[in-house]
Amino acid sequence: MAKLHFDTDYMRGAHPLIMEKLFKTNLEQTPGYGTDEYTERAKKLIREECGSPEARIFFMVGGTQTNATVIDGILRHHQGVIAADSGHINVHESGAIEATGHKVLTLPGHDGKIDPNELEKYFTDFYNDDTYEHMVEPGLVYISYPTEFGTLYSLKELKALKRICKKFNAPLYLDGARLGYGLAANPDINLKVLSEICDVFYIGGTKVGALFGEAVVIPKGKLIPRSIPLIKQHGALLAKGRLLGIQFETLFTDGLYTKIAENAITRATELKEGFIKRGFRPFIDSPTNQQFFNLPNKVIDRLMETASFEYWGPRGRESSTVRFVTDWATEKTDIETLLSQIDQIS
Amino acid sequence: MAKLHFDTDYMRGAHPLIMEKLFKTNLEQTPGYGTDEYTERAKKLIREECGSPEARIFFMVGGTQTNATVIDGILRHHQGVIAADSGHINVHESGAIEATGHKVLTLPGHDGKIDPNELEKYFTDFYNDDTYEHMVEPGLVYISYPTEFGTLYSLKELKALKRICKKFNAPLYLDGARLGYGLAANPDINLKVLSEICDVFYIGGTKVGALFGEAVVIPKGKLIPRSIPLIKQHGALLAKGRLLGIQFETLFTDGLYTKIAENAITRATELKEGFIKRGFRPFIDSPTNQQFFNLPNKVIDRLMETASFEYWGPRGRESSTVRFVTDWATEKTDIETLLSQIDQIS
Amino acid sequence: MAKLHFDTDYMRGAHPLIMEKLFKTNLEQTPGYGTDEYTERAKKLIREECGSPEARIFFMVGGTQTNATVIDGILRHHQGVIAADSGHINVHESGAIEATGHKVLTLPGHDGKIDPNELEKYFTDFYNDDTYEHMVEPGLVYISYPTEFGTLYSLKELKALKRICKKFNAPLYLDGARLGYGLAANPDINLKVLSEICDVFYIGGTKVGALFGEAVVIPKGKLIPRSIPLIKQHGALLAKGRLLGIQFETLFTDGLYTKIAENAITRATELKEGFIKRGFRPFIDSPTNQQFFNLPNKVIDRLMETASFEYWGPRGRESSTVRFVTDWATEKTDIETLLSQIDQIS
Amino acid sequence: MAKLHFDTDYMRGAHPLIMEKLFKTNLEQTPGYGTDEYTERAKKLIREECGSPEARIFFMVGGTQTNATVIDGILRHHQGVIAADSGHINVHESGAIEATGHKVLTLPGHDGKIDPNELEKYFTDFYNDDTYEHMVEPGLVYISYPTEFGTLYSLKELKALKRICKKFNAPLYLDGARLGYGLAANPDINLKVLSEICDVFYIGGTKVGALFGEAVVIPKGKLIPRSIPLIKQHGALLAKGRLLGIQFETLFTDGLYTKIAENAITRATELKEGFIKRGFRPFIDSPTNQQFFNLPNKVIDRLMETASFEYWGPRGRESSTVRFVTDWATEKTDIETLLSQIDQIS
Repeated sequence: MAKLHFDTDYMRGAHPLIMEKLFKTNLEQTPGYGTDEYTERAKKLIREECGSPEARIFFMVGGTQTNATVIDGILRHHQGVIAADSGHINVHESGAIEATGHKVLTLPGHDGKIDPNELEKYFTDFYNDDTYEHMVEPGLVYISYPTEFGTLYSLKELKALKRICKKFNAPLYLDGARLGYGLAANPDINLKVLSEICDVFYIGGTKVGALFGEAVVIPKGKLIPRSIPLIKQHGALLAKGRLLGIQFETLFTDGLYTKIAENAITRATELKEGFIKRGFRPFIDSPTNQQFFNLPNKVIDRLMETASFEYWGPRGRESSTVRFVTDWATEKTDIETLLSQIDQIS
Repeated sequence: MAKLHFDTDYMRGAHPLIMEKLFKTNLEQTPGYGTDEYTERAKKLIREECGSPEARIFFMVGGTQTNATVIDGILRHHQGVIAADSGHINVHESGAIEATGHKVLTLPGHDGKIDPNELEKYFTDFYNDDTYEHMVEPGLVYISYPTEFGTLYSLKELKALKRICKKFNAPLYLDGARLGYGLAANPDINLKVLSEICDVFYIGGTKVGALFGEAVVIPKGKLIPRSIPLIKQHGALLAKGRLLGIQFETLFTDGLYTKIAENAITRATELKEGFIKRGFRPFIDSPTNQQFFNLPNKVIDRLMETASFEYWGPRGRESSTVRFVTDWATEKTDIETLLSQIDQIS
Repeated sequence: MAKLHFDTDYMRGAHPLIMEKLFKTNLEQTPGYGTDEYTERAKKLIREECGSPEARIFFMVGGTQTNATVIDGILRHHQGVIAADSGHINVHESGAIEATGHKVLTLPGHDGKIDPNELEKYFTDFYNDDTYEHMVEPGLVYISYPTEFGTLYSLKELKALKRICKKFNAPLYLDGARLGYGLAANPDINLKVLSEICDVFYIGGTKVGALFGEAVVIPKGKLIPRSIPLIKQHGALLAKGRLLGIQFETLFTDGLYTKIAENAITRATELKEGFIKRGFRPFIDSPTNQQFFNLPNKVIDRLMETASFEYWGPRGRESSTVRFVTDWATEKTDIETLLSQIDQIS
Repeated sequence: MAKLHFDTDYMRGAHPLIMEKLFKTNLEQTPGYGTDEYTERAKKLIREECGSPEARIFFMVGGTQTNATVIDGILRHHQGVIAADSGHINVHESGAIEATGHKVLTLPGHDGKIDPNELEKYFTDFYNDDTYEHMVEPGLVYISYPTEFGTLYSLKELKALKRICKKFNAPLYLDGARLGYGLAANPDINLKVLSEICDVFYIGGTKVGALFGEAVVIPKGKLIPRSIPLIKQHGALLAKGRLLGIQFETLFTDGLYTKIAENAITRATELKEGFIKRGFRPFIDSPTNQQFFNLPNKVIDRLMETASFEYWGPRGRESSTVRFVTDWATEKTDIETLLSQIDQIS
């Protein structure tokens, strides 16, 4: 029997509808670098979904290059970006932000989230410190939604963050590498809401059914006025830019982006409930497509014979934290099989 | 009648065999970041083609990110890279090299090529200058093959460059964004020869029939020992790395990479000869898939009604230089149609 | 009566012997950029004091430029530097390290010091993490001696740090902005000992009696082989380099560097004991020339009428932490006057 | 007899009046980082001399750090700075500008100067090029006054540069490392005129009689709004900032800055005329304190036995270009002695 894979949500290619569209358009000749009509249509669809006719939108290939380009494009030379200590830009991007010359200023993460009160205190303390001109000015606030732990900010929390950012003149940037899963899990927050709250955010494609691609949205359209040379300088301007346009046009036609995410959430919920029912406690209470459990090493070792998934941090002595991730193609029977494998172990 | 497009060689998607392979493997689940078996097989095929069993190979998405990552990965902080003034890294990458902190040191380009004698003089003068420690040390030599003007170094020239680079302890880096066309046009120089001569080079996919992708080859395997964090830091580590592996596996199976280039060269030669026969003189004598002609503006204006192609530099008063590019899918009838359109103009 | 100043140790010019030497040599003509004989003699004196005939030594103007140049000169592109979260490079250098492209990786500070066990765990966890190639590799360990809180590592602690650094192939770098005070306060550790333990360190002049200037020492002489272009690139190569040579020659003649520090320590100890005797508890138990006390705001406000000193962090509601700093010119009567001012307040 | 030195203008310490003032103020205690009263007074004097009450002024230690800080502080991420190919930032600063991430865009130098027509053409061609968003945008124009060859722009040329800079929205930055000599040699252009023409410039101290120090002037006061963190980040914020204030206060009291320069110009003119009278032709017709002559190697070799001066570029086969530099302390007899030494050779 084939091994089940729950390592991550970018193990497959793309959703079949995307592949089909890429196939169908393959022989067409279009101008490069995102000046084609597919890209234009994709932007239009996203602007509509965001309720932001003024939004400026551009596409890049992956999350790290998107974060580095956006953050570098916004910050002035003496500024840094605030993030949770568990934030992707602080931990898992090989120092891509620092490589552009900017410090990542960390706040303690709470299940991956920054606390609005702690954020406000950080800003207040900064400007109250007599030596603040010798310190890195916080010029941007970075959050991920969902976070690296699959958790979600509430609407109230996002509004609080927005208020503080505005007060201290620091734009709010939301990393939506897995945005679809967040939107599917929390109906309070959709793209229109995000467009009201964030100064800039990106809609992740790579981890939500595309071959690759992330769509940066600047709802009010003011930030990063000269984006093309900036993106080019960061090595992030795709020659055959239409590949990004075609994918996002497909994702935002007939609600595909949402459907992809919903399947993953449904499956993740079945997995989570199945684990809880069997007596395992979640390491973190995630409502999205990443599920974290602390399992006995004995269970992990046996389960890894028939299913793959990742350690989250170093292996412990008796038990360890592991992560299971679902995607658009995970089937109900995959979860059932996994759970039955667990039953056979115990 | 549909307009003909000779703007560039990245206007279509990918060669059908590549699309087919991407389609066929789409639902498989593989580990990310190039640790999959397709990528492994692609590396093996390239190593064989290069006759370099020790070669280290890694894949990136586009040319600018490849240049920035490789050059930054090799140079020490105080070093710069020598290039022709017309070199892609000096002109058309929005300062991506400087953004990593390194100066591009220019030599005059001769139809896009640097002259070995001028290179040797540059190094000699540099180390003879009493103030050289206040100047940027030339730590790498960058050439493009074919050049930005479609021209090619001879084997003798490449060997001379190699000797000088060795003498002055500066690796030789060959930008092969359009390498296939160079290999198809000059049988003296194949991947084995390049692997003997260059310290590092890349095999371009984006402009030679792939959807995207460039394969960096370090024949002796010593340079850039820690490539993964470097690539990640540059935002150039593709999550679904197998997309690159699959494409290069396909390109290096049954000589596809060569066949793609050969068609483009055949078509470009037909175009060139047709133009010459009609009394137009090439702006530069290019043996590859880019052809440059100085045409009367009147001819350009009329021709652009039925065919697209690019100005090379600013439009002149009476006549201008324009570029025609062919690719794997250009057909004999496309060239014939273009030439007959010219006939109708004159 | 003139106000007393305990704000910091760089409020005056230079020790009179230094001024005298600068005055006496003023009209001499010497070659620039540190190629003069004064600089040569200063290097010789420092090499002797360090017992390191092979040591490479170079001089820069200030601490931040020294830290940025040294750290940038040692790290490879993908590496970062470990420091205590309270470390000067992490807090008070306006992101100078990140501006060179490198992340500061923080460990919790314990009265300004990093704990060897926590350092070892950091390295171990790093290399045990499956995703470490996506994280910033710790390529250097930075400590300050004395720390920003005036505290000192014991010889045992330094040896433990050295062992760990060696084990994980990361050089140990000691920021000695106030090194003199540390040497004067702890006889176990002198320049010979530091030259055994550290891979690179600097002897601070600016805060220890010079007009300005820091002397970087690489005891084994291997690191940073091309220092001149690196220093020049960082804007840190003083044209009249002999100004640094003359100052350090003077500081290391007849033990002036030590004498300067000893006076400051003696005065700081009198101040500390005087405060303790009056019932105030040190915020941190510092053996060097910086003394930190938590005082009632009422006392602070009154005392600031006749003496100046700095808040350490934001002002509290009832009481605040303040810092008193002594230097080579602080006199016994200055301390007595300060203490009597306190007596008059209470 | 002591050897005469004409190597450069930074071989001595400082003008005696500066040394005296440093000596007299040495024991005073002032706050750090340029917040002292000496610095405030120096700024006031410079503002008056510039006729720019709104001018923002800050001081740094040396030319390279000043250029890097100012240029980095003005440019946006995707922009570069235009300079003559012979410009100091392009040749002799070890890539300090590129190290901050910005390209130096070169125009051909004409005796060290850029030609206004060529500048205008550069801008025009840039914005007329269809691919300009893939190229480095010229965001600043750098000139040196005097140039590296001692030459001077005329008022008409400066006004032309200003007009073009304004038209293309690129500030004009004047590197005044040797500004005093330029002001003394051309009465058309004084600090008031420069304050009208330039968006930012610096008044060099290091090469004009100070121990060290350069004063950046932003006449209209808008550029680089957050200068302190920027300067700190570049390692260029002097702890004992008053050392810079004291020196510039002295230089701008009773016209000392001008007097220093005038002596150098008088001596340089004597030297120049003496050489010409003896049949040597200037390599470049410099009106300032640097004089360039092409001399037979035999003359150079003999003259170097009794006087020191620098080769300008590599030594030729029969003759070579050499540079003689005068300063505030060069005496009439020094020139006479040099000329008589030449007479003895011939």
